[in-house]
Amino acid sequence: MSGERIFVGLETSFSHDLPATLDKVYEDKMSGVVAPLFHPRFKRDDHGVSDTRDGPQSRSDLVMDSRGWTSSVVGGISKWINLDAGCLRARLAAEKAFKQEVAWASHLSVPAVLLPTPRHHTNSSNYARILNQSVTQAQYLQFWIRIPLTYHLGTGAPKLPVGGPGLQHNEEVSLDDDSGTSPWEAWSALRAKCEYNPKIHVALEITADLPSSKKLKRWLGEPVRVRLFFILLRSSDGDMLILCFVSTMHCRSQAVLIPTSIFLTNRKGYPTLSQRHQKFFAELFRFNIQYYFSGRPRHRGSFLPYVQYMHFLYGKKDGMDAKALFEAPYLDYLQAPLQPLMDNLESQTYETFEQDAFKYNQYEKAITKALQQTPEDKESVVMVVGAGRGPLVRCALRAAMLADRKTRMFAVEKNPNAVITLRNLKISERWDNVTIIASDMRHWKTNEKADIMVSELLGSFGDNELSPECLDGAQAFLHENGISIPCAYTSYAAPIMSSKLWNEVKVHESLKSFETPYVVRLHNMYTIAESKAVFTFTHPKFNQRIDNRRYEEISFHAQESAVVHGFAGYFDAVLFDDVTLSINPATHSDGMFSWFPIFFPLRDPVSVSKDEEIKMQFWRLSTNNRVWYEWALSTDDGKHQMPIHNPNGRSYWIGL
Amino acid sequence: MSGERIFVGLETSFSHDLPATLDKVYEDKMSGVVAPLFHPRFKRDDHGVSDTRDGPQSRSDLVMDSRGWTSSVVGGISKWINLDAGCLRARLAAEKAFKQEVAWASHLSVPAVLLPTPRHHTNSSNYARILNQSVTQAQYLQFWIRIPLTYHLGTGAPKLPVGGPGLQHNEEVSLDDDSGTSPWEAWSALRAKCEYNPKIHVALEITADLPSSKKLKRWLGEPVRVRLFFILLRSSDGDMLILCFVSTMHCRSQAVLIPTSIFLTNRKGYPTLSQRHQKFFAELFRFNIQYYFSGRPRHRGSFLPYVQYMHFLYGKKDGMDAKALFEAPYLDYLQAPLQPLMDNLESQTYETFEQDAFKYNQYEKAITKALQQTPEDKESVVMVVGAGRGPLVRCALRAAMLADRKTRMFAVEKNPNAVITLRNLKISERWDNVTIIASDMRHWKTNEKADIMVSELLGSFGDNELSPECLDGAQAFLHENGISIPCAYTSYAAPIMSSKLWNEVKVHESLKSFETPYVVRLHNMYTIAESKAVFTFTHPKFNQRIDNRRYEEISFHAQESAVVHGFAGYFDAVLFDDVTLSINPATHSDGMFSWFPIFFPLRDPVSVSKDEEIKMQFWRLSTNNRVWYEWALSTDDGKHQMPIHNPNGRSYWIGL
Repeated sequence: MSGERIFVGLETSFSHDLPATLDKVYEDKMSGVVAPLFHPRFKRDDHGVSDTRDGPQSRSDLVMDSRGWTSSVVGGISKWINLDAGCLRARLAAEKAFKQEVAWASHLSVPAVLLPTPRHHTNSSNYARILNQSVTQAQYLQFWIRIPLTYHLGTGAPKLPVGGPGLQHNEEVSLDDDSGTSPWEAWSALRAKCEYNPKIHVALEITADLPSSKKLKRWLGEPVRVRLFFILLRSSDGDMLILCFVSTMHCRSQAVLIPTSIFLTNRKGYPTLSQRHQKFFAELFRFNIQYYFSGRPRHRGSFLPYVQYMHFLYGKKDGMDAKALFEAPYLDYLQAPLQPLMDNLESQTYETFEQDAFKYNQYEKAITKALQQTPEDKESVVMVVGAGRGPLVRCALRAAMLADRKTRMFAVEKNPNAVITLRNLKISERWDNVTIIASDMRHWKTNEKADIMVSELLGSFGDNELSPECLDGAQAFLHENGISIPCAYTSYAAPIMSSKLWNEVKVHESLKSFETPYVVRLHNMYTIAESKAVFTFTHPKFNQRIDNRRYEEISFHAQESAVVHGFAGYFDAVLFDDVTLSINPATHSDGMFSWFPIFFPLRDPVSVSKDEEIKMQFWRLSTNNRVWYEWALSTDDGKHQMPIHNPNGRSYWIGL
Repeated sequence: MSGERIFVGLETSFSHDLPATLDKVYEDKMSGVVAPLFHPRFKRDDHGVSDTRDGPQSRSDLVMDSRGWTSSVVGGISKWINLDAGCLRARLAAEKAFKQEVAWASHLSVPAVLLPTPRHHTNSSNYARILNQSVTQAQYLQFWIRIPLTYHLGTGAPKLPVGGPGLQHNEEVSLDDDSGTSPWEAWSALRAKCEYNPKIHVALEITADLPSSKKLKRWLGEPVRVRLFFILLRSSDGDMLILCFVSTMHCRSQAVLIPTSIFLTNRKGYPTLSQRHQKFFAELFRFNIQYYFSGRPRHRGSFLPYVQYMHFLYGKKDGMDAKALFEAPYLDYLQAPLQPLMDNLESQTYETFEQDAFKYNQYEKAITKALQQTPEDKESVVMVVGAGRGPLVRCALRAAMLADRKTRMFAVEKNPNAVITLRNLKISERWDNVTIIASDMRHWKTNEKADIMVSELLGSFGDNELSPECLDGAQAFLHENGISIPCAYTSYAAPIMSSKLWNEVKVHESLKSFETPYVVRLHNMYTIAESKAVFTFTHPKFNQRIDNRRYEEISFHAQESAVVHGFAGYFDAVLFDDVTLSINPATHSDGMFSWFPIFFPLRDPVSVSKDEEIKMQFWRLSTNNRVWYEWALSTDDGKHQMPIHNPNGRSYWIGL
């Protein structure tokens, strides 16, 4: 990502010679334009279109080839179109003009259209209805809604174009941030009416005045269009082509509009931005967004200094470390959680996870500490249960060296393919004190008792890969004073807004998909309230009734008004003593990449107000051969009562 | 494609040091190996797997990283495994060993496994059952079945490995091409039992003796795995990434095995192949296939001369002309037919079709001829109905120049977006004698009468874009002696075998998908019988009852035993006099690329014997607002009676 540049373009007025406009834009090192599709003076009669006249209604599509249109132009929809005009005739004319412009945009294959700011923050019903129709009709077109960060544009009064050719009523509109409805609420109402359609994006207009940091942050949970990228690997002779999912998610379809009027002037006379603006841009740079300047250049008579300033700001962005590079292809990419108990992992999967140096260093530390507590002359029995291809065996061997203790080890593994690797390693790495046991830890019969039992059976939500059940079974061969590494783990959850993830789930259009949790590197989301602990498990559990079913209700308070699309799940674990692992945001282990968060979706998004109480109910349930979660949400006022998701594990369960 | 090289590899015996083997293979300019997954001397007990022993059962997966396995190794399944052994115990042991090897292959993420030739040509039921189970379990693994071109391997007797460690009965198998069951029939029976699963491919072993050319050709309709390729386009600043569907379909997963024993020696002592072999390879080179040598090098002590010979043969392949380049991304790619009457075409679509020089040259010729038949001093009225962005207007203007006739022209177009282009062109290209009419040709009211009415409304199956209905409507403004260009068109159909296309249809797992015709550039298919004419339409139809409904039953005779997966559809048209267009294979217009064939699938594939009669029933039906086809197949003996597809147009229709 570092070294890459951002897309910077320009919002222009109508020009007949678009290629000439583009040439000028390229001269100033910009890459494209938002340009009106029709000339603002092109008068249309009350039917919106004049079919009988012999003159063309816009410039020809032939001024550029279709690749030119697709790669460089976003179509601006006429600002005079008032879809919520009070007069029926004006409204119908506006609708016809709007649809004609959208049809022309589709015809040209431009990637997106920029739509005017909805005039009425709470009453844009016709705008929403016509947008919703257009969005479901246009197959490839994206729709960008122009939304200012605040309605106070610098000097105070809202500057929205009012009226238009066919408009009879010149309505005064009052869009006030203090009235309780912010631009975010206007946007949120519009897209909720359009069922969170993923083709609708916000084109955020940066204003000179900025709202509070919390309100700014909320925009980062808003939909940015994401594309999957693939690269082609070529073998040595250039012939064997392999399709690989590789690059980061690109979401160029979200746009930010930057009026030149918000820029300050530095001592040398060049444009610069306030510290708060700079900080907000640093957040925006985490996403792949197109930036368009609007207005006239106020510094040095050209846009070039503005473009250079944007690249300069972007250049200050942190480079990607190993973890970020590893994660880049997975941002917001939903995966089914592993079922390592039911399925055997593949060589590739082992290979990936074995590379997490932080995790295995922690295990090595934990085992070392545990061994150091044993008498110096004692030969300890160390059992690695679920040894895979041996990374924990190596940790244990290193720990025995560090602690300077004699050990006998057992590596228990049920996957016959991993056993082939272990047996080869025993020979090649001279694991003379290691016995390899090809068996499921729950069924192995032995008279040996372990002093230390080491396992790595945790999932993104802690217990979701059935570590509790496996270790309960394996404690049969743990010495009564024996130690389990890990000895405890806790799951965490937080309500989140992410219309992007919710839409990814919706793609499947099935109940099942909404009742399944997903492992996902959360990216384009907003945390409505900080995560809280859900379930805790400890090992071993001698002399206790063993029951791994659980129920918790957890209350959250919304930091800002928002839409709950589901819950993010995390975990932390105590390996031994003070040696821990965590993917809970508040305490995330530095550089550890073995686990992404888990996402529990909600069937229907729930709007909550600022400070409203959100109650999450969470169950862990089981039968003889499966374990599953059920979840639900209610609000304190009782208005929202989500149906309980996944009853009886009908959609998702983990096999024992 | 030209300049590209083919994938050449080697079938090797078991080696513990696979990287060393690969290094040697790379030295000889080969790219990968088919290598046994387990050592042939690795003895397994009757349960197939010995879980209690402490030694590894195969080389470790760690000898290479997973990328190495995935890119360079195909796993050979042990040849001794006899899944159809007569003795139950031997059969169960064989099954266990087979599944263990397939599991190991999945674990390693090798792209494919090579399976031994089925022992019994008609009685490989257990082979099929276990293959069918494995194929549905293994998510990514491909299965290659080794099938020799003929059972007579050079000197006569079938040389198939018989018996194995756990095998009690040493069965003699008689696999004789003359007995009526050829290797193709053995293969066809196996994959039919596995429901034509697209993960099952044939690994064709070339033999010194070759079967007849017709039988060789049939292999070209067999499943080759296809991958879609995408490329990334970068805009000038390298930031705007566009995902484009571009490259040819790759089907590297089909393999051909080439025993070195089939090579002849040329005068200089180098390996060469017989003329018939060379001809067959030229056919194979049209597909992207992996080639593996087997056996020992018999010339110059190295495989290099064989590899060089293969590249030399491949180099003789024709380069791709403009048409082939255009078509490459679309080979075997199913598309829904256009509905230009209901939907408006996009700028891009017009742009593509306007580039077909052959087609517009023919139109120009036809219009010129028609004008030349008019008196020299007559001003002719030429109407282009469905003018799009004007290519036929340009043809007509050029034709008027060539014929030296005065004309008045009308360009009738219903798409308002295309009308914008036409109106711009009228100004920029000075079409002073052209009037642009923004209207549907079926509803335009005028007193003008055309002497020549020109249209391009034909679809892949001739009438399937409703040219008959449109021109019947438009003939209201055609002079009673007027000429329609085109004046006639005929559809054609042929039964084809293509388990690849059938599987592409099956992906959707819906009745609808099997009752829809697809526009597709047929590639990996075998024509079972030459195409025959189906429906003919002529224009104008003055003084006739107009009824465009049709019914035909057409008989075909199978050239070889084969499986009918559906019908290929084509058309030809008479523009005027002797000026024609055709996509019917027998008369295909040189270099014309505007139309791909159409494919009518069958819900269930139908096996037919050589010379068997195949009857195809075909209907064209209509109501006030739609037109559709229904189709069915029966065999002469009455054994096969396909249900009639698409009754009442329930799955597919064309809107009027």
